[in-house]
Amino acid sequence: MSNRNASPARGSKDILPAEAQLRSWAISRITDIYLKHGFSQIETPIIENIGWLTGGIGGENEKLLFKILKRGDKLDLSNIRSEEDLCDLALRFDLTVPLTRYFANNRAKLPQPFKAIQIGPVFRAERPQKGRFRQFTQCDIDILGESSYLAEIELIGASLEALATLGLSGFEIKINDRRALEVLAGYCGIEAQAHQGFFITLDKLDKIGIDGVAAELVASGHSDSAIKKTVKFIEDLKSGKDPLESYSEIGGDDELISDAERIVSFARSIAEGRFSVSIDPTVIRGMGYYTGTVFEISYPGWSSSIAGGGRYDKMLSRYGVDAPAVGFSLGFERIISILSENPEITSGTKRRHLTVLFDEGEDLNAVYQQAQIWRDQGYSVSLRHKKAKLGPQLRKLESEADLTRGEGDFYGFVILGQDQSPREL
Amino acid sequence: MSNRNASPARGSKDILPAEAQLRSWAISRITDIYLKHGFSQIETPIIENIGWLTGGIGGENEKLLFKILKRGDKLDLSNIRSEEDLCDLALRFDLTVPLTRYFANNRAKLPQPFKAIQIGPVFRAERPQKGRFRQFTQCDIDILGESSYLAEIELIGASLEALATLGLSGFEIKINDRRALEVLAGYCGIEAQAHQGFFITLDKLDKIGIDGVAAELVASGHSDSAIKKTVKFIEDLKSGKDPLESYSEIGGDDELISDAERIVSFARSIAEGRFSVSIDPTVIRGMGYYTGTVFEISYPGWSSSIAGGGRYDKMLSRYGVDAPAVGFSLGFERIISILSENPEITSGTKRRHLTVLFDEGEDLNAVYQQAQIWRDQGYSVSLRHKKAKLGPQLRKLESEADLTRGEGDFYGFVILGQDQSPREL
Repeated sequence: MSNRNASPARGSKDILPAEAQLRSWAISRITDIYLKHGFSQIETPIIENIGWLTGGIGGENEKLLFKILKRGDKLDLSNIRSEEDLCDLALRFDLTVPLTRYFANNRAKLPQPFKAIQIGPVFRAERPQKGRFRQFTQCDIDILGESSYLAEIELIGASLEALATLGLSGFEIKINDRRALEVLAGYCGIEAQAHQGFFITLDKLDKIGIDGVAAELVASGHSDSAIKKTVKFIEDLKSGKDPLESYSEIGGDDELISDAERIVSFARSIAEGRFSVSIDPTVIRGMGYYTGTVFEISYPGWSSSIAGGGRYDKMLSRYGVDAPAVGFSLGFERIISILSENPEITSGTKRRHLTVLFDEGEDLNAVYQQAQIWRDQGYSVSLRHKKAKLGPQLRKLESEADLTRGEGDFYGFVILGQDQSPREL
Repeated sequence: MSNRNASPARGSKDILPAEAQLRSWAISRITDIYLKHGFSQIETPIIENIGWLTGGIGGENEKLLFKILKRGDKLDLSNIRSEEDLCDLALRFDLTVPLTRYFANNRAKLPQPFKAIQIGPVFRAERPQKGRFRQFTQCDIDILGESSYLAEIELIGASLEALATLGLSGFEIKINDRRALEVLAGYCGIEAQAHQGFFITLDKLDKIGIDGVAAELVASGHSDSAIKKTVKFIEDLKSGKDPLESYSEIGGDDELISDAERIVSFARSIAEGRFSVSIDPTVIRGMGYYTGTVFEISYPGWSSSIAGGGRYDKMLSRYGVDAPAVGFSLGFERIISILSENPEITSGTKRRHLTVLFDEGEDLNAVYQQAQIWRDQGYSVSLRHKKAKLGPQLRKLESEADLTRGEGDFYGFVILGQDQSPREL
């Protein structure tokens, strides 16, 4: 076994101390903000009965399941027709589907509206690539049981404060509404069963431009009239027409328009120059389960969004529970990448490391008591016997420090009985 | 799908807000202490290549693996002879085995000695029973690359402070040394290949008594002389003889005895009446990989230990890395059970919930600004439209609060523009 490759499993990742420290700091800051906004932490299991994860609402993610082999008598290798015969459990691919099961299971013990925080690992068997892993952390807040726009207001307020508390600014929150998109599709004469495809084409506007969208609609067999109306709608937006005015003109009802106005005007009021807010009719969010507001946050220089979410009022009814729902998910791994690449953004993860060097004969209790005093002063203290040759020992300590030194970390030492205060390495 | 049972998978658990709050608080307190003691957080993946988890060092736990089905071309259902053909990944059953792989994989980027904190879920397909789950959290610290007793000192200091910071006291730390057990086995004339079985019999002394131990040794075919010597050794202990003196008499060398003396005397010096410390030759710790000091912490009224660990100097050599190692694991789930059943122990998990009631016409930005002021004062604030009939609304708020109210939590409300300070629900 001695010469084996000790790499983690394909597509998974060992997290080194500097990143672990950053992740832990970020989770603690985000959680603190969410708690202040009245959300409560919950945990759902990482393993779920496979039936819950293959019901269709997970879309493409359901194809990326890690399935778990049955055990004991349940597993009959002599009679296997399909994977269904082999597996009864799977790893969750997101936190939203388990949340709906959790709420259905525990709703008698939960307040309504219920405001949940979930932070934890999810698993998708995607083709590994730079920055994309098969295990990654999601960081979600959801409000279940609140049908009014107040739920969106609370989610947006908490999420934007969470990003700000990490030191992020200059991002853009784009807001849209699936109901408005439905109105647009109806106005353009797109048949109901083609709506989702129509939205997915619209979603590509940034990448393929108006001509590309038009070409794709032609290829999908839509009518000339549908395509003309769509192009006109987009051109009006490009020329600066207020999207809400457009939505209103094509038949968006008053409630839809006033909800969107309230949400956008609230987000602008709390922006205070830290980020920008817009209504963007091309924000779709891929999942089929959204029914109302959808939002997405983009960060300058990053092509994919760093946060997103929306209203999914119908999902819980599939489990026999009638509760409206809205969720917002921070792209935790992407945010950690941004913070890692821009250490000047955040000043919160600094540690002060101190090695206490002492003679081997020294009373350990006295050494420990002295170490505790430095711990109380905020130092991370390690104990080490002082070597006869101090020079090489200090050089070794310094090279150890350099291995893990993060932006702004302090590494120092004291020789017990000699130094009154830490010396820097 | 509407009438399905929404229970979590067999043996796994939905964690409700009150427990999630307690868990999060405990993890944050423990981590804070460990950081102050110079340990650094790391994360290993939840999924590992199955070969790493079936190498034999996991003992019985290797039989409890959750294995993950291969995917795509790798899975050939037409040609299955055994489970090995079906699975290439599995869920980790502890944090120690992944740590050794992590260290082998990353040692060029890590200081030595390396002091690691790992807190995370592990999975064992055990028969579910009260208080035992198939997914549970482990909470480990380990020091890799330090051969002297200083590693034990640092682990014990940090672990005992961690238990104390949770409010726990009155526990008992029992210390032993596998080397001393080897000396005992040799002295009693037990053959080398029977040592592990001999230790497992000794481990049962608390449950089956001296006669039971003797009977089991007879059944295992040990000689009369071996059994007599074992019984004499145990009787000496029972009659109050100092275990270190006994170990010394039967051939324990000076280093072994002085290491044990240092460790015990250190643990006693920091106890300050908060817990007791003893050397206990019947502390074995089940895993076969221990090579030196082993320790175990028991809590009054709980039959199984709440923490344990030991030195496993040889484990890393199996992966081609020569590094001594010691680890200490808190029984996180057991500790959470103790704290849940004894809410008076801890005062750290309290929250102050505040619902802000406001008229629908009110300016949302002004409402939010007011909410932020209360958040800055430490309240968890939720926004709610004020209903025309205040009485029923307050009664609903109160019954919601009662669903999640923990020991000492505050639940209150303010009516915006009317109340200067929160009223209790």
